[in-house]
Parts: sequence; C-alpha cells; structure tokens
Amino acid sequence: MEVDEGIGNTPTNPLEIEEERHFRRIVCAFKYYKKNSLARINKTEAYLASLPEHHQDMLLKYKQHLGVIKQCIEKNEKIINHIIKDVDSMFANVHPDNADNHYSNINHLSMSSEFERVETTLKQLVRDWSAEGAKERLMCYQPIIDEVLKNFPPNQCDPGNIKVLVPGAGLGRLAFEIARNGYQCQGNEFSLFMLFASNFVLNGIRSTNAYEVFPWIHQSNNVLKAESQIRGVLFPDVNPSDLPPTSQFSMAAGDFQEVYVDSDHWDCVATCFFIDCGHNIVSFIETIYNILKPGGVWVNLGPLLYHFANIPNENSIEPSYEVVREVIQKIGFLLEKEDTNVSTTYSSNQESMLQYEYKSVFFVCRKPALRQNGLNHFEQSSLEPDDIIAPDTVS
Amino acid sequence: MEVDEGIGNTPTNPLEIEEERHFRRIVCAFKYYKKNSLARINKTEAYLASLPEHHQDMLLKYKQHLGVIKQCIEKNEKIINHIIKDVDSMFANVHPDNADNHYSNINHLSMSSEFERVETTLKQLVRDWSAEGAKERLMCYQPIIDEVLKNFPPNQCDPGNIKVLVPGAGLGRLAFEIARNGYQCQGNEFSLFMLFASNFVLNGIRSTNAYEVFPWIHQSNNVLKAESQIRGVLFPDVNPSDLPPTSQFSMAAGDFQEVYVDSDHWDCVATCFFIDCGHNIVSFIETIYNILKPGGVWVNLGPLLYHFANIPNENSIEPSYEVVREVIQKIGFLLEKEDTNVSTTYSSNQESMLQYEYKSVFFVCRKPALRQNGLNHFEQSSLEPDDIIAPDTVS
Repeated sequence: MEVDEGIGNTPTNPLEIEEERHFRRIVCAFKYYKKNSLARINKTEAYLASLPEHHQDMLLKYKQHLGVIKQCIEKNEKIINHIIKDVDSMFANVHPDNADNHYSNINHLSMSSEFERVETTLKQLVRDWSAEGAKERLMCYQPIIDEVLKNFPPNQCDPGNIKVLVPGAGLGRLAFEIARNGYQCQGNEFSLFMLFASNFVLNGIRSTNAYEVFPWIHQSNNVLKAESQIRGVLFPDVNPSDLPPTSQFSMAAGDFQEVYVDSDHWDCVATCFFIDCGHNIVSFIETIYNILKPGGVWVNLGPLLYHFANIPNENSIEPSYEVVREVIQKIGFLLEKEDTNVSTTYSSNQESMLQYEYKSVFFVCRKPALRQNGLNHFEQSSLEPDDIIAPDTVS
Repeated sequence: MEVDEGIGNTPTNPLEIEEERHFRRIVCAFKYYKKNSLARINKTEAYLASLPEHHQDMLLKYKQHLGVIKQCIEKNEKIINHIIKDVDSMFANVHPDNADNHYSNINHLSMSSEFERVETTLKQLVRDWSAEGAKERLMCYQPIIDEVLKNFPPNQCDPGNIKVLVPGAGLGRLAFEIARNGYQCQGNEFSLFMLFASNFVLNGIRSTNAYEVFPWIHQSNNVLKAESQIRGVLFPDVNPSDLPPTSQFSMAAGDFQEVYVDSDHWDCVATCFFIDCGHNIVSFIETIYNILKPGGVWVNLGPLLYHFANIPNENSIEPSYEVVREVIQKIGFLLEKEDTNVSTTYSSNQESMLQYEYKSVFFVCRKPALRQNGLNHFEQSSLEPDDIIAPDTVS
C-alpha cells in the first residue's frame, strides 16, 4: 500500500512546524501508553491496599485480576511498538534527529485525550481487522460495498477503471475490501493515530492472526465476568497483502477538504461514520459533490455524532438529518436510496453490560449526469425503479 | 413528603462550611442555566453567521430551529425557578442572607460538569415523572416493586409495618411507588441536584401534567428530525400527593453510609442504579447488610458503571460482577434470585439516533434469619423453590 503524504514536505513555515509538533505529540501518546496505563492500575492497587483487611480478603480475585491487566498492558505495548516503529519515515517533513528533544518538551499531564485515543486505536483494530469485528463490519461496511458492486458491476465494467474514494478511512478495511473487489480505491485519513496503525497493518503484516491485542482492559466499568475484560483479540483476520495483483489501493494522509480539490475526478465516494467529523457539514457535502464525476455516486452510512459539538473553542453546527438531507439535494445530488434506521455499532465490546447502538442513516446519492453531452461514465442501468426517490420527497 | 436533614444544622465547623459552599455552587448552576445555555446557542449562531451566504441559505431551517431552542431554554428556566424556589428553607444550615455574596464568589467558568448535571436533572424528570418515562420505569422499577410485593404480600402482612429503604432515590419515583403500595418507604439521596428537583415535584405539585419541560434540546447530536429535539414532555404523569392517607413516605438527604448506621432496622433495601456510585462497593454492601433486619431482603437492579472510575484525584475500585457476587455472599447474604441480562435504559431519549442499553444485573438477596431465636420478622413462605440459589452456585 502506498502512503501519499498529504501533510507537506519540509517544515519551513509555522503551519508545518505546528504539524510536526502535532506528529510528535501523537507519537508521544503511543510511547507513554505503558507508563500511563500502569500508573492507573497502580493507583487502583494503592487504594485497594488501603482498604480494611477483610475487604481486601474478599477482593483477592480482583487484586489478582489487576495483576493480569498489567501483563496485558505489557503485551499491548508490543503492538504499539510495532505501530510507531516506522512512523518517522512515513512523512518527509518529520526529522528523526529532533525526536528526543520533542518528547522531553511535551507536557504529559495534559495529554489525557491523546492517551484515550491510543486506547481507541487498539479497539479500532478489532473493528477493522479481527474476526470479532466481522459482525460490525457486516452492519457498517457491507451495505456500502454492496452499493459499489451494484452501481459498478464488475461484469459490466472494468472495476480497475472505477475510482473510489473512502474519506475517513480509519484503519482502512472498507477501502481494502473495495480494492479487493478490483476497484481503484484510495482511503483518506486525517488522524495520525489511525494513519500510524493502518500503516502497520497494511504495510507491516503479511499473514493472518499474527498478533494479539487486549483492547478491553481499559474499560473496568460494566464488566460482568473478569475474563471478558482480559480477553485477547487476534488480528488481522485476513492477510492485508491479499489483494489482486492488478489492484490499485492507497491511503492518503491529510485533511479531506485540502487534499481533494480536483473537480469531476471520482466515480464513487464512500463515507462511513465520516460526514459528522467536520466543523461545517455543508462544506463536506459540497466537496464530495465537487470531486465526483457527473453521474458519480456517493454512498453514506453513519449517525450524526458531530465531532466538534460541545468542544470548547471549536466551531460547530449540528443540523438534524432532516436539514442535512435538504442540503444534500440543494447542492444538486439526486437521492436514490435512503434508510434512516440502520442498526450499527462502533468498536463495540460485545461482552460489556453497556451496549451502544447507532440508528444510522444509509443513503445513495448521485451527482446528475451531464445528459446533453453524455459525459456520465456509467449508465444508471443498475437502478431499480423502487430505489429512486424524487429529490423533494420527504420520507 | 417529609425531608430529613442529613447534612447538619448550623455551619460552625469547616465540614459544614464546605457543605454550604457546595450547596451554593449547585444553586448557582441552576441559576445560570439560562445564561449558560443561551451562550452556547449564541456561539453556534455566530459561527453559522460566519459561513458563506449560500451555506446560510441552505441552513435557514436550522437557523430557525436554533431560535426555537432558545425559546425552549426560556421555558426550562421557569421549571428551574420552581426547582430552586424553596431550597434555602430545605436545610437548616443554609443562610439565605449570605446567598448573593456566595454567587458572586463562584467561578462560573469551572462549572461545566455542574451545568451538565442541571441538564441531567431535567432528563431525570422524564425518567421518573412523565408518561414518556413509563417504559423505562417498567424495565427498572417494576421488577423491584414486584419483589417487594412478593416478599411482603399485603394480604399476609401489614405493609404499613414494613420498612423499605431506597438509597440513591433520585427524583423519588421508585420510593413513591413502594409507598403507594402501602409500605413505609424512605428514599435517600446525596445529590443536591436530585434533592432540589424531588422536593419540587413531591412537595410542590398537586396535580398531573402541570408542567412541560424540554429535556432534549441540549443534545444536538444524532437528531433525525429537528422536531424531536424540541419536543416537550409533560410532568408529572401522576399526582405526587396521591398517596394512601396512612402512607409513610419520606426523603432523607445525605451520604448513605453516614445516615444509615443503625443495625437490623430495615425489612427491605431496594437499590436501582445505585451500588456502583461509591468509592468502595464492598463498604456499600456491608452497610446494606448491617441495616437490614435478620431475614430482611435486598433487591437490586443496575449495571456496574462505577462513578469514580477514571475521575482524577478520586479513589475507586471496579470489580466485575463476578467478584461483587462473591463479596455479597462472603458478607453473609443468601442469593435467592439472579438475572444477569436485564435490558434497561437510563434517561433514554427514545428518538435519538444513539441508543444506550444496559444489560443490568437483577438480584434478590436475604440476610439470614436468626433461626435460633426466631427474630426474623417475616417467614420466607413467599419463596418458590426454584427461586432459591445456593450461596456457592456460580451461574
């Protein structure tokens, strides 16, 4: 897998210096995973040791369990070392020589949200690359893959000529699966947490079930049985290098709206849990419209968990889906398919006493073909009449 | 409803001064609800006004919606004014004269978690006192009420002589329902947010559907249709004064473990979403065991969402249910009934695209009767053989 460098080449201006600082901060969060995670267990152990002796006697199994969690942290650290091993060479604008200086300048106490993202990254390995995540991928990725196959049937076109973009690609599984079906597919991702981990999986692993991660050890709430908290998850469930020899699959780092500025370029944009992650969703939808070829298709699945809502000092608008739907059509899309009640989960711990369910929205939109000059690359023959929703029909 | 004053009488020592400061801080959070809530909408409106004009045109309905949310904030403020109207007279150790000085000394910027609790309090009105909350109460409260009725059948005993305690009583509906069935019932609550609001509902309202609250306006994420975010909820669904003339119902303010120190006092302790809210769950279970009469019954329903887990500078242990179950039996309880997969929700917004489900644990435990001297107040005749679980049976 090729990694495009979307974040520049040499840190000569303030923006690039800021980017390098951000890069170092994320690497630091990974590097301090073990120290930080053990510190939290040590705090619990210290409190436990301060309890009345007869309480401690009753909690002996819990004490032993904390010991096992520490062992799991050590094992997770090995995965994390793989994740950050090659990151200095991922981007041209990062200078390994300066690395140590950077780490010592970072305030580790203010990094709780970054430490949390490291834990999220471990859980993302389950979602994208484990057998345990298969159920979730069936809910979230399969409807999108099915639409790509339906709109660009491999027996009616050369999928190698169909360009599919997956913005917000995470650890890359959706983009990988689309590429595995023969399409030209590029995943785009802004988060360095995701980019580091996807680089490890996609470029660093050549077999199945090569590693074991313990993604649930940091959730000590709502645990029915201790063993479920310390269960390991093998990954990857498929060999990430198992792509057709002709496949064209890449991951592009960078801000979606900065990287993708060329009009009429993509045959399909596939978004999964993505459109709610910007400050201004209208701008995202406009970009998707702009980069699609006339006649191109946008397939989307996800909720509206606006990432910047309620974040101090961040701008955000949070229109309802009803309004988003109107915006989509006002921008010019034809809404061809829509389901507003698709049961989905996100990095769900299936054994937790707390379960989240997103009633996601799934839709397929088309940028109108330029009928007068026949520029649309692919006839809409795959559409069933009952799939077509007139732009102004409100469900 | 009588309110016991669990937090002292006159602020003569540092602890009481700290309690009065805490009291003022909570009152302040309620008082600043409108200003704080409007500020957040104003911020969104300002960002919206900064977007390109054609974006604003597409978002006109959203802009109008923000205007309606502001009107709902004004309406919620009226409810809040009712909630805090009488609080100065709720506790003997609070001095109304000093109130204004206190408010001006509070740093409002550091109060985001208190502001969030005010919003939670509004949602709690739905859970406990609205028709919309009926489904949730059926899941969470009914199994507990059924066990009280089964263990102390009104046709086999005088329920007026049966003392039931509900620690973590929230807005009081579970305790109210138990009292409505004729039992002597006391709710205990530590949170002033809950105590202020339950005082308003239980002592201030004498009819049904007297007020309308807009509890969902602060959740702008995962909104399918704008109208669902601004829907009003009428409360209370029952007249809170509608209790049998002989009923004995009270709410006691204060820390559960400080207030309840008398051994062998209660016939039944009913806990719902409560046992996970302390630093040391073992200590809670010991207290419940201690205050129950021999032969008395503990009915519990809830998850294990340990309140102090991951809170900086707070101590916490988070044993799994498996360990908690062992502790319960080691302390001396006989586990008579157990279901580890009870689907429950908590202040759920049924129209949100994000739904939470707790797979709660439900159990019934008995403090062994003193068989040798026949001290147990009530024979265990109501137990069916298939309800009885031997102490050491692991499910």
